[in-house]
Amino acid sequence: MLNEKLNWRYATKKMDPSRAVPQAKVDRILEAVQLAPTSSGLQPFEVIVVTNPEVKAKLRAAAWDQAQITDGSHVLVFAAWDNYTAERIDAVVAETGRQRGGVTEALTGYYDRLKGMYLPRSAEENYQHAARQAYIAFGIAVTAAAFEEVDATPMEGFDPAQVDEILGLRARGLRSVTLLPLGYRAAEGDWLQGQKKVRKPLNELVHNVA
Amino acid sequence: MLNEKLNWRYATKKMDPSRAVPQAKVDRILEAVQLAPTSSGLQPFEVIVVTNPEVKAKLRAAAWDQAQITDGSHVLVFAAWDNYTAERIDAVVAETGRQRGGVTEALTGYYDRLKGMYLPRSAEENYQHAARQAYIAFGIAVTAAAFEEVDATPMEGFDPAQVDEILGLRARGLRSVTLLPLGYRAAEGDWLQGQKKVRKPLNELVHNVA
Repeated sequence: MLNEKLNWRYATKKMDPSRAVPQAKVDRILEAVQLAPTSSGLQPFEVIVVTNPEVKAKLRAAAWDQAQITDGSHVLVFAAWDNYTAERIDAVVAETGRQRGGVTEALTGYYDRLKGMYLPRSAEENYQHAARQAYIAFGIAVTAAAFEEVDATPMEGFDPAQVDEILGLRARGLRSVTLLPLGYRAAEGDWLQGQKKVRKPLNELVHNVA
Repeated sequence: MLNEKLNWRYATKKMDPSRAVPQAKVDRILEAVQLAPTSSGLQPFEVIVVTNPEVKAKLRAAAWDQAQITDGSHVLVFAAWDNYTAERIDAVVAETGRQRGGVTEALTGYYDRLKGMYLPRSAEENYQHAARQAYIAFGIAVTAAAFEEVDATPMEGFDPAQVDEILGLRARGLRSVTLLPLGYRAAEGDWLQGQKKVRKPLNELVHNVA
């Protein structure tokens, strides 16, 4: 069932600009992102949902002119925290306390130890760690889109500095890591559509230690 | 449907050591990993499936003694390529040619350009990029386990150097990035079981540019 959906999807090369993804479907994809597991539950990223045509045009220019960005109706921009800070971790503690009926000593102790590990590290090391968490959610977003029978194009091919500038991300302590245009595959003009999905054979990808 | 599965799952803290995950379920989880999208289709990682009790015990010792590693029946170790090399990229070109009926000039040209970008970069930069791809597959594996009603514990808390040593990964050009023990939640002894799943509200996680 899951694997049928994953087999159906492909990195759509040509979206139909006349079809928009219903907001209810986008909302379910975003809920899947929200439910993605992350290290210590920090969810160290945000998702910027761009539907504004002028902003999409700028993003396209910053992404090697890939047309899916403007032909699709929504672009999800995954942006990781540029660093871990005491404030950001404290906000997670407070939210956990709110949702679980109080901030316990165990909760505070856990995140205090986490601060002891993360805060002395460089911003770059922390950003790299945060970016990996965003990739977990990104993989789940791709899967969720397939479940909604929404086409999507996972994209790393863009200039992160330009995307950060277009969306004002650096000022908010964020750095763009991936784009995910959402839309519907065009009937014609997509060279990849209908091509066999190529994957490494399982006996090369997987090794057993039994 | 997907989101129900994601809501059902949690980072299981106590597995029932008397219950093994059927191999058919593990196989479907590995097929989902195989289907995960990766940058330029390189699939720059391997998954080591550990069921050997002695090896699991060593992994547990390298992972802060987390009992799920030995109480679960299978441990998936996600290991990223330590670098991109011409040989590794050529193997992807050859496999694509095999599965799509021939190596075309367009195919060779695409991957030649990729080599031009990747091969001059440092091994560390390439490894970091490969690791991000492994995280996409890791997120999909977590989702696939939930679909199989198999419990799983996404883990970064281990000593990668020790895990690499235990599994002989460095000699094969691989570096461990995450562990995923698979099993079934124990009826008792899991402090997290039954706790409310805490997630950041959508209006904090998602920002619209409309």
